[in-house]
Amino acid sequence: MTSRIAVLPGDGIGPEIVEQAVRVLRALDLDLELTEAPVGGAAYAAKGHPLPEDTLALARQSDAVLFGAVGDWKYDHLERALRPEQAVLGLRKALGLFANLRPAILYPELANASSLKPEVVAGLDILIVRELTGDIYFGQPRGVRTLEDGPFAGDRQGYDTMHYAETEVRRIAHVAFQAAARRQGRLCSVDKANVLETSQFWRDIMIDVAREYPQVELSHMYVDNAAMQLVRAPKAFDVVVTGNLFGDILSDEAAMLTGSIGMLPSASLNASRQGLYEPSHGSAPDIAGQNIANPLATILSAAMMLRYSLNAAPAADRIEAAVQAVLAQGLRTADIHENGTTRVSTSEMGDAVLKAL
Amino acid sequence: MTSRIAVLPGDGIGPEIVEQAVRVLRALDLDLELTEAPVGGAAYAAKGHPLPEDTLALARQSDAVLFGAVGDWKYDHLERALRPEQAVLGLRKALGLFANLRPAILYPELANASSLKPEVVAGLDILIVRELTGDIYFGQPRGVRTLEDGPFAGDRQGYDTMHYAETEVRRIAHVAFQAAARRQGRLCSVDKANVLETSQFWRDIMIDVAREYPQVELSHMYVDNAAMQLVRAPKAFDVVVTGNLFGDILSDEAAMLTGSIGMLPSASLNASRQGLYEPSHGSAPDIAGQNIANPLATILSAAMMLRYSLNAAPAADRIEAAVQAVLAQGLRTADIHENGTTRVSTSEMGDAVLKAL
Ligand SMILES: CC(C)[C@H](C(=O)O)[C@@H](O)C(=O)O
Ligand SMILES: CC(C)[C@H](C(=O)O)[C@@H](O)C(=O)O
Repeated sequence: MTSRIAVLPGDGIGPEIVEQAVRVLRALDLDLELTEAPVGGAAYAAKGHPLPEDTLALARQSDAVLFGAVGDWKYDHLERALRPEQAVLGLRKALGLFANLRPAILYPELANASSLKPEVVAGLDILIVRELTGDIYFGQPRGVRTLEDGPFAGDRQGYDTMHYAETEVRRIAHVAFQAAARRQGRLCSVDKANVLETSQFWRDIMIDVAREYPQVELSHMYVDNAAMQLVRAPKAFDVVVTGNLFGDILSDEAAMLTGSIGMLPSASLNASRQGLYEPSHGSAPDIAGQNIANPLATILSAAMMLRYSLNAAPAADRIEAAVQAVLAQGLRTADIHENGTTRVSTSEMGDAVLKAL
Repeated sequence: MTSRIAVLPGDGIGPEIVEQAVRVLRALDLDLELTEAPVGGAAYAAKGHPLPEDTLALARQSDAVLFGAVGDWKYDHLERALRPEQAVLGLRKALGLFANLRPAILYPELANASSLKPEVVAGLDILIVRELTGDIYFGQPRGVRTLEDGPFAGDRQGYDTMHYAETEVRRIAHVAFQAAARRQGRLCSVDKANVLETSQFWRDIMIDVAREYPQVELSHMYVDNAAMQLVRAPKAFDVVVTGNLFGDILSDEAAMLTGSIGMLPSASLNASRQGLYEPSHGSAPDIAGQNIANPLATILSAAMMLRYSLNAAPAADRIEAAVQAVLAQGLRTADIHENGTTRVSTSEMGDAVLKAL
């Protein structure tokens, strides 16, 4: 059966890194139908909206979305609803992509790239499971209002609503426990239960779901402490599960511990295993079009896509092995280049992965 | 005129570290009236509440509060309203302590303690200005309800409200701009304006207040990016200003970059410069009563108290110089001890600071 993939390159370096991932996918001898569509600032420029209806329709009909990156200074002046990031939020919400999987892995060959001491990060392999469609991201009511009473009566006030329904917490809990069961069996749930009702609610449900996974050891950590422990002793974590807002912060912090965010893929899945796959880094408009960006995070995102949405784990394994091989060969794009390794361009890195397949 | 100081030792290592700070204060030849009262778990044990009325009344009548730390596993089973941390939240709210100043400084002598590479953190000197009485910490409505409609109708839902009134943002902005003006003149405001109404509101007001401080350069950063940049290049920051929730996370992350959180003081001020001063670290119940905890963060908090609430900057300078001196002498408590330095106890560290005064 043909697998349909929506290819959304987006802005900045998006097109050039996605191009390499598409070359890799085409080389695999799988029955894939790839269809490209505009998204983000590029879509706003072409069609007046960062997530045009045709693009959204294509994504809905596809088994998976291969996404580049969105955002460019050019669009900073737009009102929020038209800014490139809204495409990301819109796709997550429309497709119900509630489970974001963000591995933070430090490849041994790249240990020097980290700002942390090698002994602190060597061998790092954390999986952050971030809930992606709930929390304060989409919570209503939200807005700006004028206060009628209280200590700031007469003042304008900006406000948002954080919330989680039981179903939302349960389903991300199951994703996280299952991931932990396949790994080292340790799950750390991060919240702020000493302050937030939403967090206490979240924690109680995590504890309840844990009874179905006796093989997984569940622990709880406040988000401020988690932000510290990631810096102090990141290797102590196996799988981390947390809400949308805390997950946004902690997954980026964890990614940066590796010093090579250009290597880190991500997956965002819904209940029917439809998914959006994108590199963890951004659109880097400052280096766009120069053929120097690192395509490996996008290529590894394509591998995650094969594994999670297209049921093609062997092909995913092949891609991951090929990436390992090019690193072992000493090939490096500018972001991870160091003395003694060979600096290659975006397309040369793509060539090398193809050859290693 | 006599300055009145409420001394609230609290739980865990609180009493022993506060004791050393009190010795230092008494040695200064200032007109201080120090009155001790229970807080946190100790107060719950003695009086049934983590913030007894007498303790709160004392704090209100004082010019400043010297606070140890609260929290102990012993109290984990209590309902949230009786847990030790509620004392912290209660004092902040009752005294209107909206401005939390959290320096993250790496003393050259302690550079090895960091999990980051020395070249990344040597000379680190960041000031995080965290708003402390608004945001989602105290926002109403909050609770658990049953959903009547929507995709999760029938579900229970935990919820909280994030909000900031204009007055709240303006007053913390002024504190931050003034701090930046006295330092390197660079202020980074951290928010999540691409997602949150509260954040866009916050950002607009920061931009407005900036016009009163032409000598300060204001920049904006999303919280996820800030969590990354703190790991990647922390020395790029001078002063950071942010809301209560993001400040909770980022100030702890920044503190841990130094690897020596036992050295970091904090101040929480209200509009009349009344303040609560406490170490940035917690109550560490596992090492309580062993005379091994590091009293320097508390001693440096006492110095901040003299500077900000008691208008006694010269005395603050003396304490800070004395702490520098004991570090230069090679004296270290267990948490910062390394080969080639002299390991001392809590009280011996207090002795050394007194001698160096
Ligand atoms: C672009 C932004 C809305 C988005 C988020 O906050 O989720 C991004 O930071 C991410 O993590 O994918
Ligand atoms: C104890 C807790 C409520 C508190 C907070 O979140 O503010 C603490 O983490 C802090 O930063 O002082």
